[in-house]
Amino acid sequence: MKPALLARLQKRLGKSAVQTAPPPEFSGDKWFAQTRPDVVVFPSSTEEVAIVLREASRAGVPVTPRGAGFGYVGGCTPVHKGIVLSLDRMNRIREIHPKDFVAVVQSGVITGDLQAAARKKNLLYPPDPASLKDCSIGGNIATNAGGPRCLKYGVTRNYILGLEVVLADGTIIRCGGRTHKNKTGFDLVGLFTGSEGLLGVVTEATLRLIPLPPARAALSAGFSSMRAAAAAIQSVFSGGFLPAAVEVADRFTLDAARAFNPGANFPPGQAQVILEVDGQASTVRSEANALEKILHSSGALAVAKATTPEACEKLWGLRRVYSQSLKATGLKKLNEDIVVPRGRLVDLVRFAERLQKKTGFPIACFGHAGDGNIHTNIMVADAENPAVQKKSRAALDELFHQVLAWKGSITGEHGIGLAKMPWWDQAVPRATRDLHATLKSALDPRGILNPGKFVASRPR
Amino acid sequence: MKPALLARLQKRLGKSAVQTAPPPEFSGDKWFAQTRPDVVVFPSSTEEVAIVLREASRAGVPVTPRGAGFGYVGGCTPVHKGIVLSLDRMNRIREIHPKDFVAVVQSGVITGDLQAAARKKNLLYPPDPASLKDCSIGGNIATNAGGPRCLKYGVTRNYILGLEVVLADGTIIRCGGRTHKNKTGFDLVGLFTGSEGLLGVVTEATLRLIPLPPARAALSAGFSSMRAAAAAIQSVFSGGFLPAAVEVADRFTLDAARAFNPGANFPPGQAQVILEVDGQASTVRSEANALEKILHSSGALAVAKATTPEACEKLWGLRRVYSQSLKATGLKKLNEDIVVPRGRLVDLVRFAERLQKKTGFPIACFGHAGDGNIHTNIMVADAENPAVQKKSRAALDELFHQVLAWKGSITGEHGIGLAKMPWWDQAVPRATRDLHATLKSALDPRGILNPGKFVASRPR
Repeated sequence: MKPALLARLQKRLGKSAVQTAPPPEFSGDKWFAQTRPDVVVFPSSTEEVAIVLREASRAGVPVTPRGAGFGYVGGCTPVHKGIVLSLDRMNRIREIHPKDFVAVVQSGVITGDLQAAARKKNLLYPPDPASLKDCSIGGNIATNAGGPRCLKYGVTRNYILGLEVVLADGTIIRCGGRTHKNKTGFDLVGLFTGSEGLLGVVTEATLRLIPLPPARAALSAGFSSMRAAAAAIQSVFSGGFLPAAVEVADRFTLDAARAFNPGANFPPGQAQVILEVDGQASTVRSEANALEKILHSSGALAVAKATTPEACEKLWGLRRVYSQSLKATGLKKLNEDIVVPRGRLVDLVRFAERLQKKTGFPIACFGHAGDGNIHTNIMVADAENPAVQKKSRAALDELFHQVLAWKGSITGEHGIGLAKMPWWDQAVPRATRDLHATLKSALDPRGILNPGKFVASRPR
Repeated sequence: MKPALLARLQKRLGKSAVQTAPPPEFSGDKWFAQTRPDVVVFPSSTEEVAIVLREASRAGVPVTPRGAGFGYVGGCTPVHKGIVLSLDRMNRIREIHPKDFVAVVQSGVITGDLQAAARKKNLLYPPDPASLKDCSIGGNIATNAGGPRCLKYGVTRNYILGLEVVLADGTIIRCGGRTHKNKTGFDLVGLFTGSEGLLGVVTEATLRLIPLPPARAALSAGFSSMRAAAAAIQSVFSGGFLPAAVEVADRFTLDAARAFNPGANFPPGQAQVILEVDGQASTVRSEANALEKILHSSGALAVAKATTPEACEKLWGLRRVYSQSLKATGLKKLNEDIVVPRGRLVDLVRFAERLQKKTGFPIACFGHAGDGNIHTNIMVADAENPAVQKKSRAALDELFHQVLAWKGSITGEHGIGLAKMPWWDQAVPRATRDLHATLKSALDPRGILNPGKFVASRPR
């Protein structure tokens, strides 16, 4: 990067906001790929973000926006180096309005902090990605983040009413607004949400909040097989229930979690189902009882019920250690957040069993069974060995191939980033990829925003 | 239009699918503006839609897509003439899949028909625009249609998983898919949804269905004033309730409805609130009772409760005649589906009262109080008189000016069409309008799709 550009950025943003020897975490996220940027900038305002983009645009220098760096697919890895634009300093909750049911936040706000602040005013911001204590609203918007509760409540997009966005050339735009319904023009809010930093930099969001449900209950059940667990889940839906969350874990996940947490109260059996309902106290009571009956009559080996907030948190604690427990096996965990059509849950589990036998890699499945978004983890020993890498890549190929044959998706909530790029061409028809390039070229003609990812601007 | 183009269309689509003397309804929708197109085409397949667009694109002839023609803002009025592309013949429900919880439909399917077909399989397609018996899914997608139940369930966008779209040049693309969660690439589904026929023609949609709630209940309450009604609604939310629907009507609306339906059971007072809850039978019972108490303790003059499907339909019948009753007053009804931030409901009603006094036009407010989307109707006598037209236009100006000053929206669910075009520039900042033009130019460089509406392609 040219010293003159660096000097200009230092002059405009202040020296402390322009770091040429950034800590290593700014080279990537929770995925393995790391590239050291030339510089990390920490703007404190929308205007400063605009300055960075204007300067970078003129100079043709890549800019990779970065939230809290808790992505799982390398989405904020600055593969073409240049500038990493961190939103860390833009972490103010500007407003939580109990009568309008909105929050206005800068994009660097940590999701869990917003949830806590809303809760104090008897309001709920529903999206609950597993990393909510660490991830930022801006990162959630970039990936259209989900979470267990999205079954009932929907993903991040459903809670964004308005956005302030800085375009590649430094233009500041506002789209959407403060109302819970809005049909003014094209859905620009939707276009930027989930665009993985390729179309603009979100600096502020107006979020939709809902009344905080006064009560909740959670149920954990053990089943003899994933097939039995999947049948139980179908019975829940057939009963006309749409619980807040429907999670599942297979035998490998459960065994790893039991080994990692010997004292915890995991259910017996080869599969665990977790359900959550929320709402009015009397509703929650009667629905939890009804669901308990459905689980029993679907062959549950045991059912545990939590009806206080503390007991619910403890029960969810069982779910939250899955990922960590798998890591603690010592195997490398290739976590793919594939989605299958809801009716394919058992087919997926059977396929994973066959793939496991064929390849010798253990495969651990857990996640959001309600919406078919199962985290499918191929567990790899000796992962640095090139022969093993070739084999694990082939196993992933087979998995994605099958998922797409079922009309499934290669990513439900993590995004494409770098991790899913090898399967992008298979997942998306050519004409649709061309349309992505058309949009990218229209919004970022010089291709400075997060280059090296799933779509590039066309050469002019 | 050149005879050669017409002949080619007749040859490719068949003579009965190309009408040069179309019935008058193809000149517009439920809004007053009408323009007679040169020809109406009725393609029977996606391939035929592609043929029409390819031919029109080459010839530079305008194409205005048309659903069932039940829009309220002149969105499908072919102001630049040319071709009206009717989706009438593409009305097949291809699939309703009870395990995947999806429906696949052609865009000409009538919304009510889809709902009935889903219900037979114990599934619910929630969006419920008032015209659901007449409007089409394609039209709903073009306007991102709402309805009373959208308070709890969200608008049309929330139920679209995948789309097949024909672009201006005849390219057929598929975006999204069949899964309930999907983060593969940009949100093209969102980009086309609500784009009012300006970016492409939707030919097929894969829709998300949910388990049919087994029970429902509705409550109707009368209040002494809109202020009292608004306070009652706030109390409902404060209690942690998010009902399926929260509707309101003011005195003028109520009086018109009473006059139009002398036998019907309208509540006493100057404002009506209607609430609906749905879910498990025990939930609905206990929540309806709790809401009844809240309404009483908020000063309701009377509360009627419906707990059977038939009684609910009868109660909603009171709501469904509002619009017709206003028309029956003999006054011209300028219906604006403005949205205010939820906390501004009382402010809006007071403003309407002041505006009424100032202008002498009665103003009738009713609609989706839960999301601040109030249909505000300026009622005009002698509407063809130019002096009156000038005055009513000034009253609308004042209304929209105030709504925007409150950070409200000029349209919640009807779209911009022709009716809201005069306020487009005020509602949307210049940089955001420019971005609309960038997108329009990128997707429809020749500007053939629904020209004469809120955004035009830039000259090349």
